Amino acid sequence: MSIDLNSDVGESFGAFRLGADAEVMRSITSANVACGFHAGDPGVMRQTGRWAGEAGVAVGAHPGFPDLVGFGRRELRASAREVEDMVLYQIGALAAIAASEGVTLAHVKAHGALYNMAARDRELADAIARAVRAFDRSLVLFGLPGSELISAGTAAGLRVASEGFADRAYAPDGSLAPRTAPGSVIHDAEEVVRRSLRMVTAGQVTATDGATLTFPVDTLCVHGDTAGAAELTRLLRAGLEQRGVTVRAFRPQADRA
Amino acid sequence: MSIDLNSDVGESFGAFRLGADAEVMRSITSANVACGFHAGDPGVMRQTGRWAGEAGVAVGAHPGFPDLVGFGRRELRASAREVEDMVLYQIGALAAIAASEGVTLAHVKAHGALYNMAARDRELADAIARAVRAFDRSLVLFGLPGSELISAGTAAGLRVASEGFADRAYAPDGSLAPRTAPGSVIHDAEEVVRRSLRMVTAGQVTATDGATLTFPVDTLCVHGDTAGAAELTRLLRAGLEQRGVTVRAFRPQADRA
Amino acid sequence: MSIDLNSDVGESFGAFRLGADAEVMRSITSANVACGFHAGDPGVMRQTGRWAGEAGVAVGAHPGFPDLVGFGRRELRASAREVEDMVLYQIGALAAIAASEGVTLAHVKAHGALYNMAARDRELADAIARAVRAFDRSLVLFGLPGSELISAGTAAGLRVASEGFADRAYAPDGSLAPRTAPGSVIHDAEEVVRRSLRMVTAGQVTATDGATLTFPVDTLCVHGDTAGAAELTRLLRAGLEQRGVTVRAFRPQADRA
Amino acid sequence: MSIDLNSDVGESFGAFRLGADAEVMRSITSANVACGFHAGDPGVMRQTGRWAGEAGVAVGAHPGFPDLVGFGRRELRASAREVEDMVLYQIGALAAIAASEGVTLAHVKAHGALYNMAARDRELADAIARAVRAFDRSLVLFGLPGSELISAGTAAGLRVASEGFADRAYAPDGSLAPRTAPGSVIHDAEEVVRRSLRMVTAGQVTATDGATLTFPVDTLCVHGDTAGAAELTRLLRAGLEQRGVTVRAFRPQADRA
Repeated sequence: MSIDLNSDVGESFGAFRLGADAEVMRSITSANVACGFHAGDPGVMRQTGRWAGEAGVAVGAHPGFPDLVGFGRRELRASAREVEDMVLYQIGALAAIAASEGVTLAHVKAHGALYNMAARDRELADAIARAVRAFDRSLVLFGLPGSELISAGTAAGLRVASEGFADRAYAPDGSLAPRTAPGSVIHDAEEVVRRSLRMVTAGQVTATDGATLTFPVDTLCVHGDTAGAAELTRLLRAGLEQRGVTVRAFRPQADRA
Repeated sequence: MSIDLNSDVGESFGAFRLGADAEVMRSITSANVACGFHAGDPGVMRQTGRWAGEAGVAVGAHPGFPDLVGFGRRELRASAREVEDMVLYQIGALAAIAASEGVTLAHVKAHGALYNMAARDRELADAIARAVRAFDRSLVLFGLPGSELISAGTAAGLRVASEGFADRAYAPDGSLAPRTAPGSVIHDAEEVVRRSLRMVTAGQVTATDGATLTFPVDTLCVHGDTAGAAELTRLLRAGLEQRGVTVRAFRPQADRA
Repeated sequence: MSIDLNSDVGESFGAFRLGADAEVMRSITSANVACGFHAGDPGVMRQTGRWAGEAGVAVGAHPGFPDLVGFGRRELRASAREVEDMVLYQIGALAAIAASEGVTLAHVKAHGALYNMAARDRELADAIARAVRAFDRSLVLFGLPGSELISAGTAAGLRVASEGFADRAYAPDGSLAPRTAPGSVIHDAEEVVRRSLRMVTAGQVTATDGATLTFPVDTLCVHGDTAGAAELTRLLRAGLEQRGVTVRAFRPQADRA
Repeated sequence: MSIDLNSDVGESFGAFRLGADAEVMRSITSANVACGFHAGDPGVMRQTGRWAGEAGVAVGAHPGFPDLVGFGRRELRASAREVEDMVLYQIGALAAIAASEGVTLAHVKAHGALYNMAARDRELADAIARAVRAFDRSLVLFGLPGSELISAGTAAGLRVASEGFADRAYAPDGSLAPRTAPGSVIHDAEEVVRRSLRMVTAGQVTATDGATLTFPVDTLCVHGDTAGAAELTRLLRAGLEQRGVTVRAFRPQADRA
């Protein structure tokens, strides 16, 4: 039994520092790197790519809406055409910088509102899948289990990864409870490990109404932008491994001399 | 005797339309495509790449400072590290979009203030050369004849192209007369053709003080953002060809079915 | 019988020129000036304010979403709090620049997607009304007749102005037919005058399905961003005046020495 | 003997948090609030204005270059006209938001590279002074002692305030040692207090080469964007007051019920 462990990183911007990327990288296997639209800048992207390369962590693009002040968390009614182009732009930008650090992209995970909209809206989901396929057919496309994004990726011939969230509460419909809701982010490490193990081994999680949700989980997301993120991630990986779960990326970075 | 004919294109942005790109493409051999920092957006980049591909025009990246309101024409004291990363980011973004239209990048020409600063500042010039080399060693780097950018490109092992400006006045030191100076942009087609022929065949041009400047010219730039640009470009190409000059790109787009 | 004639102006941005503002100003009585978020920049705002002052045209703020590439036409799910603050920010910025040209703001008209969302969403409408009232209770708030924005303005104690669109097609529900629909923008001057006269004198307009819509019209909007805009506006004003309609602003700029 | 104590605040942006504004406000008398160009957003501006109002701290505008990724610290060769307009835009935007929180602006302090360029460049200095005067002739203009900005403000009939930096090293020419130089930011509280007292009481400070610089100091700046900023500021104020220096703003916010 194995699982990929991913986190959103590279979300600093200029003088604005966010996250504990270097520390988080020690425990995850896939790094979703912001590409400059909702967070990140070319220098941050390089540094993050370098850290990932050094840690042997797989690097993926984490494209978002061009909404820096809203951190890409606000829905923007962009057309499918616009979404396809902005996603491709961001993938290409990151790929170029990562390549200069000897790192090849392994996956794509849409960010924030774009991720959530594409879970429900097939047109947007298809647009993202087209952008990914156009860039590199071997990239793994991350998405919410059962989402339109997973369907679109599959239809486009891409390898897809259904994503569970280790430290987020689930609404009864399988979507994430909004960040503004109390208890939507779980901070207790033991509970995070317990929920994660159940997701990985049984494909189940308890929703906010107490119901049991069942879905496949190929990769687990743990947040990386708060004070305790690095420690939580370390405990999560240790907890998974202690229970016999192998933590590994879909396409790990090759060893580098 | 042959020459490349280039123009800055893809400078529209969202609802803001600039230039007569589709028309200009009929006469040029190399298109310098804005990459979203000083002009251009992902959708404009795609459209421009498509037009270039259809016209068999070589596509190059035209990276600039992140200064949309200043159109990249204002000097920004970014560090060499920042310049390297922003140039690489822009090249990668354009390359991804162009590739999805079947187009491979052939060259890089820095835009506006970045181009001018890198002509004089070796550190910035080296930064640009590093970004180009990191992305693709076969890209041709455009620069002002005798500039630090040409030196840096050569030192980095890149193929370089010394650029003459068909419709711009030259200061006595070989730099371009500032756009704000009267007569800095030449609109008379006959004069443009005459000056261009002399640059291409004799490597000479008359500066604003009447002195003769001598420098090699591998590619000729003609502006594409005004009303008469397309017609001027057409006349320039015809004038060159009538005098036996072959107009061709360094690395033309392959014919596409 | 009188009517205000307004147009969206000041929508250029840096090197990107849009509209025929100086010409349009000769015929309108209220100028809605973009404030830098969806279009406009500080220099354009100053120039536009100066032209309006010279023409004796009332100046209003035209705040929009922070979406330059989308020209503020894409819905952005900003919170009411965010909308209130961004509207107030934009009003204040324009007011300062206008004041330095001797011009006092007379009205506020939200732009694009913000205008349309606030027509339906009372929370956003209230947010806009709060921003306007906080800045200056004597500002006139423009809105779609019968919209939540008009209700919110009235509830906030503001003077409101119901707006008709001289050259736009109406959907059966009284909203504007989307710009992407064929025939949504009416270019025929005679038809524009005829429809406008009927709106002003009878409060009626024919919708796209042939039905008659009835609503009050205090101000007529005519677009200013296309080639024929200035001439269309001139013809519209002349047509209205020939039929005895007085064209005047709610609060005209005072004569200036 | 009295002194104003100022700090740059409101430098958060969206999800990016910077500084310890609420704590710093307890010790300073003048708050320089970022206006959205180099840092700050409309919501942050409102919150910062509110905190300042509650703490009885005078609020000033802290306009900067439109360079968010560079935090306004990179020189941008904008024209005097552009600088005047962008400064006026930012002052107006902040004034509107502050007014809605019951707070009237008291001063203007340019930020980062704009501050430093205007210290040496009279054209830019005049542009800033014109913007300030156009908005409100009673605003106090902050600047480096003996700088062109102070001269321009005086020539424009503005009240000016010569600023000393409590925790920054000085180059022999009276400019600030660049942030990148080791020792350029002084963290030891005792040294900060000692240097500050000498600046306030004797108008003297020791430069990096050991020489004594002599200049008038009307206001002392202490940085507010690091972990220990609030405590350092508290100690500085206490140290000044213990030595009999009255710490007060030029134009304090009126008590509010």
